[in-house]
Amino acid sequence: MSRVVQNITRAARATIERLGQAGVATVHEAQGRTGLMAANMRPIQQDFAMAGSAVTISAPPGDNWMIHVAIEQLQEGDILVLAPTAPCDMGYFGDLLATSAMARGCTGLVIDAGVRDTRDLRRMGFAVWSTAISAQGTVKETLGSVNVPIVCAGASVAPGDVIVADDDGVCVVPRASVDDVMAQAQKRLDAEEAKRQRFAEGELGLDIYDMRPRLAAKGLTYE
Amino acid sequence: MSRVVQNITRAARATIERLGQAGVATVHEAQGRTGLMAANMRPIQQDFAMAGSAVTISAPPGDNWMIHVAIEQLQEGDILVLAPTAPCDMGYFGDLLATSAMARGCTGLVIDAGVRDTRDLRRMGFAVWSTAISAQGTVKETLGSVNVPIVCAGASVAPGDVIVADDDGVCVVPRASVDDVMAQAQKRLDAEEAKRQRFAEGELGLDIYDMRPRLAAKGLTYE
Amino acid sequence: MSRVVQNITRAARATIERLGQAGVATVHEAQGRTGLMAANMRPIQQDFAMAGSAVTISAPPGDNWMIHVAIEQLQEGDILVLAPTAPCDMGYFGDLLATSAMARGCTGLVIDAGVRDTRDLRRMGFAVWSTAISAQGTVKETLGSVNVPIVCAGASVAPGDVIVADDDGVCVVPRASVDDVMAQAQKRLDAEEAKRQRFAEGELGLDIYDMRPRLAAKGLTYE
Amino acid sequence: MSRVVQNITRAARATIERLGQAGVATVHEAQGRTGLMAANMRPIQQDFAMAGSAVTISAPPGDNWMIHVAIEQLQEGDILVLAPTAPCDMGYFGDLLATSAMARGCTGLVIDAGVRDTRDLRRMGFAVWSTAISAQGTVKETLGSVNVPIVCAGASVAPGDVIVADDDGVCVVPRASVDDVMAQAQKRLDAEEAKRQRFAEGELGLDIYDMRPRLAAKGLTYE
Amino acid sequence: MSRVVQNITRAARATIERLGQAGVATVHEAQGRTGLMAANMRPIQQDFAMAGSAVTISAPPGDNWMIHVAIEQLQEGDILVLAPTAPCDMGYFGDLLATSAMARGCTGLVIDAGVRDTRDLRRMGFAVWSTAISAQGTVKETLGSVNVPIVCAGASVAPGDVIVADDDGVCVVPRASVDDVMAQAQKRLDAEEAKRQRFAEGELGLDIYDMRPRLAAKGLTYE
Amino acid sequence: MSRVVQNITRAARATIERLGQAGVATVHEAQGRTGLMAANMRPIQQDFAMAGSAVTISAPPGDNWMIHVAIEQLQEGDILVLAPTAPCDMGYFGDLLATSAMARGCTGLVIDAGVRDTRDLRRMGFAVWSTAISAQGTVKETLGSVNVPIVCAGASVAPGDVIVADDDGVCVVPRASVDDVMAQAQKRLDAEEAKRQRFAEGELGLDIYDMRPRLAAKGLTYE
Repeated sequence: MSRVVQNITRAARATIERLGQAGVATVHEAQGRTGLMAANMRPIQQDFAMAGSAVTISAPPGDNWMIHVAIEQLQEGDILVLAPTAPCDMGYFGDLLATSAMARGCTGLVIDAGVRDTRDLRRMGFAVWSTAISAQGTVKETLGSVNVPIVCAGASVAPGDVIVADDDGVCVVPRASVDDVMAQAQKRLDAEEAKRQRFAEGELGLDIYDMRPRLAAKGLTYE
Repeated sequence: MSRVVQNITRAARATIERLGQAGVATVHEAQGRTGLMAANMRPIQQDFAMAGSAVTISAPPGDNWMIHVAIEQLQEGDILVLAPTAPCDMGYFGDLLATSAMARGCTGLVIDAGVRDTRDLRRMGFAVWSTAISAQGTVKETLGSVNVPIVCAGASVAPGDVIVADDDGVCVVPRASVDDVMAQAQKRLDAEEAKRQRFAEGELGLDIYDMRPRLAAKGLTYE
Repeated sequence: MSRVVQNITRAARATIERLGQAGVATVHEAQGRTGLMAANMRPIQQDFAMAGSAVTISAPPGDNWMIHVAIEQLQEGDILVLAPTAPCDMGYFGDLLATSAMARGCTGLVIDAGVRDTRDLRRMGFAVWSTAISAQGTVKETLGSVNVPIVCAGASVAPGDVIVADDDGVCVVPRASVDDVMAQAQKRLDAEEAKRQRFAEGELGLDIYDMRPRLAAKGLTYE
Repeated sequence: MSRVVQNITRAARATIERLGQAGVATVHEAQGRTGLMAANMRPIQQDFAMAGSAVTISAPPGDNWMIHVAIEQLQEGDILVLAPTAPCDMGYFGDLLATSAMARGCTGLVIDAGVRDTRDLRRMGFAVWSTAISAQGTVKETLGSVNVPIVCAGASVAPGDVIVADDDGVCVVPRASVDDVMAQAQKRLDAEEAKRQRFAEGELGLDIYDMRPRLAAKGLTYE
Repeated sequence: MSRVVQNITRAARATIERLGQAGVATVHEAQGRTGLMAANMRPIQQDFAMAGSAVTISAPPGDNWMIHVAIEQLQEGDILVLAPTAPCDMGYFGDLLATSAMARGCTGLVIDAGVRDTRDLRRMGFAVWSTAISAQGTVKETLGSVNVPIVCAGASVAPGDVIVADDDGVCVVPRASVDDVMAQAQKRLDAEEAKRQRFAEGELGLDIYDMRPRLAAKGLTYE
Repeated sequence: MSRVVQNITRAARATIERLGQAGVATVHEAQGRTGLMAANMRPIQQDFAMAGSAVTISAPPGDNWMIHVAIEQLQEGDILVLAPTAPCDMGYFGDLLATSAMARGCTGLVIDAGVRDTRDLRRMGFAVWSTAISAQGTVKETLGSVNVPIVCAGASVAPGDVIVADDDGVCVVPRASVDDVMAQAQKRLDAEEAKRQRFAEGELGLDIYDMRPRLAAKGLTYE
């Protein structure tokens, strides 16, 4: 049952970049509030964002063998996404693997487990979102799979899906819907800019969104 | 049962500022070790402190409608304090709401739930202490209340209470006792300064506090 | 049963420093993947590493009396390591105790509980790894012990063991094995440097470690 | 600041018993979905319910001295409610204290901390809801208070409030509103009985509550 | 984006029952150790097992409206499987909904959130696996979807998949592979029976599985 | 570094049985409140107690190979105690291993990880305390050690130490001190019996322990 899918389809680079600029919160809203990973998926660096195509890894707990297999499948701009088959906080990934992944053009890692050498990873500019930081070493004994559908931190990820990650967390955009999602995200960005100006000038959301009648109808009382 | 209390009493600005300078640990000690929120209430920024009057929000899980209502009640120097009525890590608050709150003079937010747009919030200088960071969007369907007593991260907060927040967490000072608490805090600060000097010169707490006889009486043995 | 052991044996300073430079992940591997504290033991500062001899404290929950006792036992380069006898997130340690410990030459603190005055501690350059940040004050009523074997965040620590701590966490090296561990660590560092170069040039782990035959033998299939 | 309030007002026994028969879910709904303790407050026995007047205890972490003080304040049908001033899972309460409390007519214990001798407590018929089970012993060194307002497992409790507890958790009813809450609860119970019959006969909630038009208006589509 | 899929395909009842008799551990092994929900998905009753076809619900946090919609889609032997779109421990489901679901032939509920009226549910014989028990009420304001693919407690569930649940947890079998999985499960059951007999007679796994040579080759030493 | 220690020393059976009858809370107190495992170590059965000699297992996460090795080392009345080298909730142990262990006279299992087949284990009368219940299967690829000192759920365990387990949790008694601990436990049991009688007759702890003067001296006030 262990397999490596070698030819995966990726979204257009330009769209991926625009999704990355839109950011996690906007993209998550733009696709109907779906695709968000759990809130314990946190970055090891601050004030940084990335977007790329997912190369997925399903790995046994405490076994990082499949990362070596996955690195061969990386293309420029890809992001490794690893989900263990049972909860695990061990350090699957460190500076050597990051060196190897960067040499293949990999942008970063999203892992529902632990990473180590975090200071080196920050220095190298290799971006990581993880659910743990741990030096605990892993083995290379049991197979997993590469580029199969996985569930990572509560979100479904198919190989080639677009990963958007920033300080707010990680969002997955299904590859087939990137254009629709980006179109929605752009609308949202445009609308937000206008509203931001009105808010900055002191106008209230109560008025901008005409909320007062509905609040009153629901029974809100002022004392 | 949903209501907005419009006229709340606030403490004197000068005292609020002095409490903020004293900091969370000192204020917490000064009022008899009460009022501290739980340790999972963490800042999204580092090396920053604030103090202000609480405008409280009781909100349903996953519903941020009441924040718009609360913003209208804000005065210069106020702090929004939100407690959901059940545990929730969704992103109730982002850069647009922060823009609106800042336009009303609001200093920051304390929320027993999630926030999003954290990078933007740091850039804008809008201070936040939260129990989660999440892009997950909320709805505007169900009423809550504004400026009613709440329990936020294990601490009771009444509207107008003084919130002191820094890297150590968040402490609530009942409005009626701010002068007493500040007086105690000042005594503590004065005493600490003298002790800090003695500690820095190498004197031991064992001697400064005359602990040796009591330790011996309790049965401590040296080998 | 409360006691203070006054004469503990420490490792050679030069070896301690080399272990600190090797870092947590390397040292943990070098001693057979043992000695690592749990992943919730996190630093309050970023991009900082330390190593030193453990002065251990077994303290009751919410009682920091023994820290004063332990400070008298500190020598230049020592690290305080505190484990409460039941889970506790209260703030055992703040800037006054840090001032006292620094005056005795102490490098830092590893505590399976909370600390406070974290901003001050960072300013002072006193390094801390803790499982909580909390302003909650402690009492001085019940004895514990100093320089006895403890279990801290899941790891056994004997007095005089070498503590290595960096952004990845904390690792304990038994005093008697520091030379062996450092020898192994050095081998690992040397080997890693060669491998890092090969990885950087794009060579794959699959080839460097000759993994392909074993993967095939285990049944990995490529599609 | 440590005090014991001796004369507290209790609700009428008959109303307390009716609230207990209504159960936690119904009472919680009847008072506007307030007063519920957190979901980690769990019973040590199954299929058992109780209701009584709260005798509250604010205790230091790991210190059960105030339980002895509180037991003197107990009257027939009272329930002890203990909140530590910081998170603590130690075993504050066991069979000896239960023997003492039962001799005073106490019905049970609600504690945001640990209990021990749980098998004996079940045998004795002393009901307990706790957030932990632990044999870890506590000390008697530091004062707390009895019959003061506390926050227990996220809910505000004043002395004399009515505690309703069953397999679903624990709900607090403010003493002054017990009659109103019971009246609402009774209405709910009556309405539920009629609805239960209709559901049992296969009628759908969609029809009983006439939900179909509103679902359609919101945009629900059937495929 | 909210929709109800009305015609879903179910597996054969006979196979579903055999999977239920095989139990969670065996079925999980039989399908290559996939499909298991997280370990915090726990039953509210003991020593009970069930299997059935999944009718899936994607619901907003704190909103149980879609359960009413889903109940209309139930057929004899179905199991409701609900995942909230963000973590939530509120009580989505109680005895009235169970009465309605049972009237449609529903066997039980698997929910990555809370349930209430647990004592009544046990009395009624309506089986529940949940990640929380809570009386906290939900609203009926925001749409979700019924019979769409969901991720529940870390496992992917498609409508019509077979749910197997017992004291060990919950496992999901994709509908299309139920026959293959049951065939593998039967092989495993047959093999286990033979091994159980040998173990009972005192034979060691070391010998039954001929482990000694491989252990020695890996370097295990006996002292 | 993987090894099996074959000759371990056990305590006298009679003393082990007396410790088991004394129970976890009493034994924990009798040895100075040490040796208790963390509160998340819970039994899978209710109202059951056991005591026995520890056969310890240090196992890699997700790898149960060493259990087979350990079973060969079991003697009548022994208890298996397993600690993974990193946090893991997988199901290391089920009914087949229990059958094998019981055939060797093993009484039960204490494991800082998961077990499966829990219903069968209860039926078989094989007692288990674990930190998780999970059907998730493990592999047999990586060595660990048997009968070496381990840290299990926060407590140090040496091979041959006496394990006492009941509904309150698990306590470890160092083999060398079993007689002293049992003597202390007996004193405590005798004293408790006398006190239980006085409590049952309504006498207060305040009077039995003469607490009133000390409470007053500490400043407790009655209102």
